[in-house]
Amino acid sequence: MINYNDYLSQAASGMQESAIRRMGTILAQNRDLISFAPGYPAPETFPWPEFSDIARELLSGSHPNALQYGATRGFRPLLELIAAIMEKRGAPTDMNRLLVTTGSQQGLDLVARVLLDPGDVALVELPAYTGAITAFRNVRAQMEGVPQEQDGIDLAALDATHQRLVKNNRRVRFLYVVPNFQNPTGMLMSLRKRQQLLEWAASRNVLIVEDDPYRELYFEDSATEADVRPIKADDREGRVLYLSSFSKTLAPGFRVAWIDAPAPIAVKIEMAKQAGDLCTGAFDQRIVHECARRGILERQLPLLRRHYADKRDVMVAAFRKEPDTALTWADPRGGFFLWATLPRELNADRLLDRAVKHGVVYVAGSAFFVNDGGGASEIRLSFSAPPHDQIREGVGRLAEAIREELREREQAERPARASTGR
Amino acid sequence: MINYNDYLSQAASGMQESAIRRMGTILAQNRDLISFAPGYPAPETFPWPEFSDIARELLSGSHPNALQYGATRGFRPLLELIAAIMEKRGAPTDMNRLLVTTGSQQGLDLVARVLLDPGDVALVELPAYTGAITAFRNVRAQMEGVPQEQDGIDLAALDATHQRLVKNNRRVRFLYVVPNFQNPTGMLMSLRKRQQLLEWAASRNVLIVEDDPYRELYFEDSATEADVRPIKADDREGRVLYLSSFSKTLAPGFRVAWIDAPAPIAVKIEMAKQAGDLCTGAFDQRIVHECARRGILERQLPLLRRHYADKRDVMVAAFRKEPDTALTWADPRGGFFLWATLPRELNADRLLDRAVKHGVVYVAGSAFFVNDGGGASEIRLSFSAPPHDQIREGVGRLAEAIREELREREQAERPARASTGR
Repeated sequence: MINYNDYLSQAASGMQESAIRRMGTILAQNRDLISFAPGYPAPETFPWPEFSDIARELLSGSHPNALQYGATRGFRPLLELIAAIMEKRGAPTDMNRLLVTTGSQQGLDLVARVLLDPGDVALVELPAYTGAITAFRNVRAQMEGVPQEQDGIDLAALDATHQRLVKNNRRVRFLYVVPNFQNPTGMLMSLRKRQQLLEWAASRNVLIVEDDPYRELYFEDSATEADVRPIKADDREGRVLYLSSFSKTLAPGFRVAWIDAPAPIAVKIEMAKQAGDLCTGAFDQRIVHECARRGILERQLPLLRRHYADKRDVMVAAFRKEPDTALTWADPRGGFFLWATLPRELNADRLLDRAVKHGVVYVAGSAFFVNDGGGASEIRLSFSAPPHDQIREGVGRLAEAIREELREREQAERPARASTGR
Repeated sequence: MINYNDYLSQAASGMQESAIRRMGTILAQNRDLISFAPGYPAPETFPWPEFSDIARELLSGSHPNALQYGATRGFRPLLELIAAIMEKRGAPTDMNRLLVTTGSQQGLDLVARVLLDPGDVALVELPAYTGAITAFRNVRAQMEGVPQEQDGIDLAALDATHQRLVKNNRRVRFLYVVPNFQNPTGMLMSLRKRQQLLEWAASRNVLIVEDDPYRELYFEDSATEADVRPIKADDREGRVLYLSSFSKTLAPGFRVAWIDAPAPIAVKIEMAKQAGDLCTGAFDQRIVHECARRGILERQLPLLRRHYADKRDVMVAAFRKEPDTALTWADPRGGFFLWATLPRELNADRLLDRAVKHGVVYVAGSAFFVNDGGGASEIRLSFSAPPHDQIREGVGRLAEAIREELREREQAERPARASTGR
C-alpha cells in the first residue's frame, strides 16, 4: 500500500476544502434546496441570442484561430477593449500591464505565486473572499485580518497590525481589498477611505491588490458610478494590482477576466500563467471580445443593475416581514450579497444544519474569517441567482429555522439558568 | 520609484521566459515566416459544423448551467465519458480519481504544486516537454534529466541517477514521462520498457507522471493501438498519475483535459484547482462532452491519424530531397514532431537566426534539456499545423539556411586550420 501522504508537498498537506464547496456538495444531494450559498449570476440575464449569433460566426470555419492556442497575455483585440474599459473606469493602462486571466480566481492565484513566499504576510479584510484566502494559503502565506468599519477597512487597526508584524520581522507583501460591494459583506468602501488606503500603502511600502468583480453592479437607488471609482484610478505610483472580470457582467461559464499589474510584475505573472494553463480559452476570449465590441456588454449593465437591485429588494422586503428573527443587516448598495447578523445566542454554523432541514442554505460567516472565532453569528446570503418567488420562499424557510433554533436555545437555557439560580 | 524586484517571491525571481514563447514573439513580428515551431493542431481538421451545431443548442437559452460556474472536479457527464475513454485505453478508473483540467498544462501545474516542495527532485527525460519543465521549476523543484534510448528512457541511467540523488539525501518525488510520440522527440516508448519502468518505480518507491496528449495520433503505417497502451493500464498499485487531453483530438481553444490520480492525491489536486481557477469553463466542457457523446470525437480520430501521417510524409520526403543538409532523424510514428540532428559543426541556436532570415522557424533543442549544453545540435520541427505546400517550402528554406551556415562554418574554419598548421 502506498501512503500518499508521504508524497504530498507541504502546500498540499495544508490545503483545505472550502466551506462554499462543501455547500455545493450539500446542494448536489438535495435538489429541493433553495440556495443563497454560492454567488452565482442569474442565467436569465445572459444575452443568449447574442452569444449564439457570435458563436455561430466564430465557428463558421473562417476563423481558424478561434479554436487554436493563443498568446499567454491574451487575445490582443480583447486586451485593447479591456484597456478602453480601464480608461472608462478612470484608470488608463497599457499593454505592458494587462493580462487576460482564466477568471479572476486565476488572477488571485498568479498574484499569490508571484508575490508571496511561504511565511510572507498578506493583509486581508475581516471578513474576506474565501477564494483569495485559499489562493494565498496555497502558497503557504500567512494572512492577517483587519476589521472593517461601515465605510471599509479600519485604518488604525490596519496600521497597528502592520506595525506589529514589522516589529516581529514579518514581511508584509500586500493588502488585499474588494472595495466595491465586497464579498461577503456587500460593503462599499468610501472614496475618502480609498484615498487614505493609497496614502497608507505608500507610507508603509505595501502593495495593494484590488479585486473588483462587482463594480458595474451598483444599484442606482443608492450608489452611482462615482462611488465605485477604483483605488487604481488614483494610483500614481504603480502600487496597485487591479483585477476585474466578465464573469458577473457576461457569464462565468466563459472564464475570462483580467489583471492590470505594474509591468515588471505583469511579466512574471505572464510566466506563471504560461506554466499554469498556457493561455485562456481562445473561443471564450473571442466571445467576450465580440460582446464588448458590439456594445452588448454595455447594454447589459443597466439591465443587470436593475435585475440585482430588484432581487435585493425582494430579499430585504421578505426579511422585513420576519422581524421576530431579530436578524440585522445593512442594505446592500450593489453586488450579490446580503450579510446578516444573527441574534447573539445563535451560531451560524450550528443553524446551518437546521436551515438545510428546512430546505434553505447559506454560507456561515466563519468561512470568510482568517482569525479563529470570527463570523460565528454572521451569514452570507446571495440573492443573485434565485428567482423572486424562491427568494421569498427561502427567506421564509430560513426565518422558520431561526425561530425554531431560538425556541430550542431558550428551552436549553432555561434549566441552565435555573441551575445557576440554585 | 518602486523597486518591484523587492516584492517578487523566490519562485517569481526564478521564472524564465520559455524559448517557445520567444518564438511566438518572432512569429508575431514576421507574418511571412513559415513556422515549424509551436506544436499547434491543424484547424482545417476541426469539425467546425459540428461545433457550431452544438454551440447553437447549448446557447439556445434552455441550458442555464451551460454558462454558469460549475463543480471544480468537472462537468459530471463529461467525467463519465472520460471514464469510458480510460476504460477503452485499458485503464479503467472511477470518479474519485478523475478531474477535468483547464488543459493538460494546468494538470502539470497542479501536480507540481501538490507533489513538489522547493528542492524536491522531479526526474525528466532528456529532452523533455518545456511546459512540464517550467511547471516544475515554478514550484522551485530541481529537475534531473535521464537520457533516452531508441525505445525510451535509459533504465540503467535512470537508476544510477536515482541512486546518486538518494545518496545525496535528495527527495525524488516522481518521474515525468511522455511515452507516446514524445514532445519533442516524437519517440514511442516500447511496451517492454513501460513495464520495466513500472517495476523500477515500485522498487524505488517513486511515482510516475504519465503525460499522454498524442496517443490517439499513431500513424497506422508504423504503429497500432496496442503500441500506445498507457503505463497506467498496468499500474496495479496506484503509482501512476495519468494526464490526457482533448486539445489534440478536438481543439485546443477549448481548454479541456483530464487527470487520473490516486484518490488521496486527486482530492488535493481538486483543492489546488479550486484556488487556481474555480472550475474549467462550463461551455467548453459541454462542447467537448457533446462531441464525445455524439461520436464526433471517435469519427475524428482516424481522420487525424491520416492527416498528420500525411504531413509527416510530406516533411520527410522534402528533407530527403535535401541530402546535402546532412540532417538525421528517426521517422515519427505518430504525433506532431520531427526531431532532427544537425551536422556536428552546426549549433541549433545559432542557426535559428539564419533560418528566420530565410523565413522559417523551429525550436532549438536546448529548450528541452534541463542539463547545460544539451540539445545544441538538435531541432524540433512541428509538421502538424502548416499545409503541405508550406511544409515543402519551409523545408526548402531551412535546407538553404543550413547550407549557407555550413559554407560559412567551413570558410571560418579554413583560416583557423591554416593558422593551426603554421
